[in-house]
Amino acid sequence: MSPERFARINELLDKRQLDLTVVMENVHKNHNLSAVIRTADAIGVHAMHAVWQSRKTKLSRSTASGSHKWVGVQHYSELESAVANVRQQGMQLIVTHLSDSAVDFRDVDYTKPTAILLGQEKQGVSEQALAMADQHVMIPMLGMVQSLNVSVAAAVILYEAQRQREQAGLYGMPQISEQERYRILFERGHP
Amino acid sequence: MSPERFARINELLDKRQLDLTVVMENVHKNHNLSAVIRTADAIGVHAMHAVWQSRKTKLSRSTASGSHKWVGVQHYSELESAVANVRQQGMQLIVTHLSDSAVDFRDVDYTKPTAILLGQEKQGVSEQALAMADQHVMIPMLGMVQSLNVSVAAAVILYEAQRQREQAGLYGMPQISEQERYRILFERGHP
Ligand SMILES: C[S@@+](CC[C@H](N)C(=O)[O-])C[C@H]1O[C@@H](n2cnc3c(N)ncnc32)[C@H](O)[C@@H]1O
Ligand SMILES: C[S@@+](CC[C@H](N)C(=O)[O-])C[C@H]1O[C@@H](n2cnc3c(N)ncnc32)[C@H](O)[C@@H]1O
Repeated sequence: MSPERFARINELLDKRQLDLTVVMENVHKNHNLSAVIRTADAIGVHAMHAVWQSRKTKLSRSTASGSHKWVGVQHYSELESAVANVRQQGMQLIVTHLSDSAVDFRDVDYTKPTAILLGQEKQGVSEQALAMADQHVMIPMLGMVQSLNVSVAAAVILYEAQRQREQAGLYGMPQISEQERYRILFERGHP
Repeated sequence: MSPERFARINELLDKRQLDLTVVMENVHKNHNLSAVIRTADAIGVHAMHAVWQSRKTKLSRSTASGSHKWVGVQHYSELESAVANVRQQGMQLIVTHLSDSAVDFRDVDYTKPTAILLGQEKQGVSEQALAMADQHVMIPMLGMVQSLNVSVAAAVILYEAQRQREQAGLYGMPQISEQERYRILFERGHP
């Protein structure tokens, strides 16, 4: 590994937000999955969760622009297991959904340990997910269409989280363990 | 047309931001084009511009979720013509590009009449577009990947514009002409 690449990866790892994640509930279109992972990488998410009630979609390498190498995706066949995992890490569960009980996405505190749950392209989030949520959040819609593309909704919320965490100085406080840092430098260091 | 639909369309038209638009330079993937139009509708863009150096892509109806019916897209074969059009409307030209001269997207004043130019999926924006820009803007990238999906980048910037315009009270000041209002109610009022 070149010294430049070594430095670049270390710098990236210093900024990783281990207490911020995304849970995708049956999001199944490749280009959406890939775009979410790419945005997650860009704002410092280190690991994500994907729940598959049916088949497993294979991530397309090209659209994710290599980000799948840098953001771990853990797969589940049950929503409960994914939620149990993020709760065990002390995260609040934010479920994205346009409903009367939903608060504006800018009124959420993303500097707390947070998992953001996104729903399926057609069906949206499940009743089960809504029931387990700490908060329902929505992005305001001022036009005729009822919802945004799922990767777009993810990005709008993740960049609000990035803004808040930047302001709170969280990108200046490395969270990653030395063990995890070495694992990644070892596994991913090769170009 | 039902009274509810009539009221809904009128309300939407009251919020349309005629002095905010998007220019897509050779963005060619259907799902990206459609996602951009959908987001544009959601934040009140009324008309957009698409430059095609080669073929014309047909917009897929399903992914745009009907938003193509509500956001007009004007097509051009030359970038100059699109830029001339937005300049004639007194708009600043913001070109999205990661470069040393680019400012953070949150440091731009989107309450001014503004056109946001987005580049092609692989090539990005053209040299020509960069040369014509009033400002180059970029969205911070803290991970390993170099760029966001184009519809994601569009959404992050458009929702920042929405935030600023909401704060400035611009959604409470209808801009649309009575003529345009009647045209749309007449053409689009049928379910
Ligand atoms: C295309 S939408 C699903 C639409 C579905 N018909 C519904 O009513 O939920 C896919 C996912 O994107 C996210 N999403 C889209 N627009 C949103 C908005 N305005 N606010 C919050 N989440 C949104 C949610 O996670 C949603 O489950
Ligand atoms: C996938 S990117 C193009 C990448 C291309 N390799 C380049 O270097 O420009 C497609 C378009 O999305 C927008 N975009 C993506 N990431 C961006 C970022 N971080 N800041 C500003 N614009 C971005 C720009 O309009 C860009 O032209």
